[in-house]
Amino acid sequence: MAVGLAAPDALWPVGGIRVASGAAGIRYRNRNDLVLLELTPGSHTVAIFTRNAFSAAPIAVARNHLSSAAPRLVLINSGNANAGTGTEGVRDALACCEKLAELFHCRREGVIPFSTGVIGERLPVDKVVALLPDLKSRLGAGGWLEAARAIMTTDSVPKGISRDVVIHGKSVTVTGIAKGAGMIRPDMATMLAFLATDARVNRELLADLLQQTALTSFNSITVDGDTSTNDACVLTATGQSGVEVRKEDNEICQVFSNVLRDVMEHLAQSIVRDGEGATKFVTIAVNQAASFNEARTVAYTLAHSLLVKTALYASDPNWGRILAALGRAEITQLDIDKVDIYLDDTPVFVQGARALNYTEQLGQTVMQKPELMIRIDLHRGQHHARIWTTDLSHDYIRINAEYRS
Amino acid sequence: MAVGLAAPDALWPVGGIRVASGAAGIRYRNRNDLVLLELTPGSHTVAIFTRNAFSAAPIAVARNHLSSAAPRLVLINSGNANAGTGTEGVRDALACCEKLAELFHCRREGVIPFSTGVIGERLPVDKVVALLPDLKSRLGAGGWLEAARAIMTTDSVPKGISRDVVIHGKSVTVTGIAKGAGMIRPDMATMLAFLATDARVNRELLADLLQQTALTSFNSITVDGDTSTNDACVLTATGQSGVEVRKEDNEICQVFSNVLRDVMEHLAQSIVRDGEGATKFVTIAVNQAASFNEARTVAYTLAHSLLVKTALYASDPNWGRILAALGRAEITQLDIDKVDIYLDDTPVFVQGARALNYTEQLGQTVMQKPELMIRIDLHRGQHHARIWTTDLSHDYIRINAEYRS
Repeated sequence: MAVGLAAPDALWPVGGIRVASGAAGIRYRNRNDLVLLELTPGSHTVAIFTRNAFSAAPIAVARNHLSSAAPRLVLINSGNANAGTGTEGVRDALACCEKLAELFHCRREGVIPFSTGVIGERLPVDKVVALLPDLKSRLGAGGWLEAARAIMTTDSVPKGISRDVVIHGKSVTVTGIAKGAGMIRPDMATMLAFLATDARVNRELLADLLQQTALTSFNSITVDGDTSTNDACVLTATGQSGVEVRKEDNEICQVFSNVLRDVMEHLAQSIVRDGEGATKFVTIAVNQAASFNEARTVAYTLAHSLLVKTALYASDPNWGRILAALGRAEITQLDIDKVDIYLDDTPVFVQGARALNYTEQLGQTVMQKPELMIRIDLHRGQHHARIWTTDLSHDYIRINAEYRS
Repeated sequence: MAVGLAAPDALWPVGGIRVASGAAGIRYRNRNDLVLLELTPGSHTVAIFTRNAFSAAPIAVARNHLSSAAPRLVLINSGNANAGTGTEGVRDALACCEKLAELFHCRREGVIPFSTGVIGERLPVDKVVALLPDLKSRLGAGGWLEAARAIMTTDSVPKGISRDVVIHGKSVTVTGIAKGAGMIRPDMATMLAFLATDARVNRELLADLLQQTALTSFNSITVDGDTSTNDACVLTATGQSGVEVRKEDNEICQVFSNVLRDVMEHLAQSIVRDGEGATKFVTIAVNQAASFNEARTVAYTLAHSLLVKTALYASDPNWGRILAALGRAEITQLDIDKVDIYLDDTPVFVQGARALNYTEQLGQTVMQKPELMIRIDLHRGQHHARIWTTDLSHDYIRINAEYRS
């Protein structure tokens, strides 16, 4: 059960993008597992990828193709990650691109492939290729929500959001979909996320905007600290709204950037809310750090502590575990006597000792909430970071002991 | 249930050390929770402590006392960690030392205190102090096993071992006890461990030997990656055997060091075998690394991956998860195509792809064993590291969601 998250009611079309989903039977039965996105000529597309050294075959191919041509087609499968498959995996990914390119009479480099699912098994290329003509024939503007469903693996709900904003009197849409629930600790990237807008944005600015907004959205979440081999976040701007976003026009750029941030933060939060076995959605805020990295280090150390995570699961205000995790964070010369710990707005630990008016009952009240914040004030500087995470429950163990990721 | 570990049948006395345990009623009912060790004058004692920035009050006091006097008495309580207790915690620890010193007519600095148990609650000094005369009256040579029981918290069995070795025709004994099952990822120290020998070893050599052997024993284990605020490992040499171990006498030094290593590795393994919820005892060996630190980084990244740990619990040879964890280890420019992965002696992944003759059945056979090895050959250099860890089971969640650490 996702924490405070339902499937989106609807996702809006983005001018210049057509979508289709279908069932290739790669691993799952009776559900879609293959998605095709067609991007109108003149679109700009940028992406960020996992930094896992064992990045999957499709990541290598997508990175390569993106650097040599403007993508016309995006092909995404679930059920098989095509990772740990060596040179055969690369051949398999390229074979899918090739067949799709033939159908659309474009270059192979115009296709960027993505895969998510089980690691270490060959991608069944024949099944993928067999479905491509059908996908082509069913391309349409309205298939986003269906696509969000087709890319799910251990996700319990499809994840997506649409936002619009009026710029120069014209409406600009941003629609995004994402998948991911486990093996979630994106490193300069995310699980799979696909975002599109009908604004016109040049490639350089688009890449800048994606990097900036990824840092505080997809790159600020963790479920279990494990980074996937297949993380990718793709952003396409088709320009079909007729609205141009330029770097020089600061105000417009800010308005557009805010909408993009909204969409990305929603998708990033959605992944955490649907974290495997999650019963809590937890914000960890670290303030007054000497640097942004220091604040993030402390936040992630708490978020990855199994003892903190199981205390969250138990709704147990066991601040000793927060303290112990904080104390092992890899930052230099932490002065205990300056550290404050809050649960939501309740001071728990102030300047090296339990807060005067703190009671177990006060802590318990916060810990029982499905959404709560752990706040640490380090009193070492002016930097801060905020990440989102989950608790660690029996269901996480069950899901990951029973199923293959 | 500890993996391949039962309570020791017996622990041998060490000349020059007297031991007593009793029930102060600090937290537990109907069991001992307080241990007193009396060290004969002329003994040398060295210790290593947690590097957690939030080290507990008794750690601060013990460190301080050790630097100013040769300890005559060691006082250990379970049930309360006296951590996160600020200046009051330090006063409480000192009060216990003071009362004990009065009883023995020695200086307060001659007492080193240790605590383990719940973090963030005041130590009930009155209860501790009230039991001291009784402990003093019952001091004897034979109380080691009882002491191993008294320092347990979430441990399921007492941990201890005795070894002897004949040097220059005389028998030298090393006896050690330890406790710990969760919050286990010692950082240059351990959970609580107390070792004693009747060899005569000067303080400098004793400290060297402790550091060296700790690195590959207590500092090579992890259960959950959480470092305790109270970790400490204490080694006393009483000299009562009449055998002297000197640095200049290389061969004797090696013989003694080997026995010490034996004892420490046994105790370190015992902690892992009794890891909270553990159903597997797993050795992770990383070979052919560019440096010792690199090898350890890779080993710990695997050992802390929740996905690897849940796969171990499920006896699932899910090497994709090993691969993914390996790929996010913080080492520079890892070349996938050179990496080999073995489960025990079964090659699973060789030079970037699944091993030719590998089958799920082969992997499964290894993973079903209660004790197994994951071996990684990096082909980057000549360094290697070996650590011990556990799986992550439902019982870990249950233990840590239900109980306060």
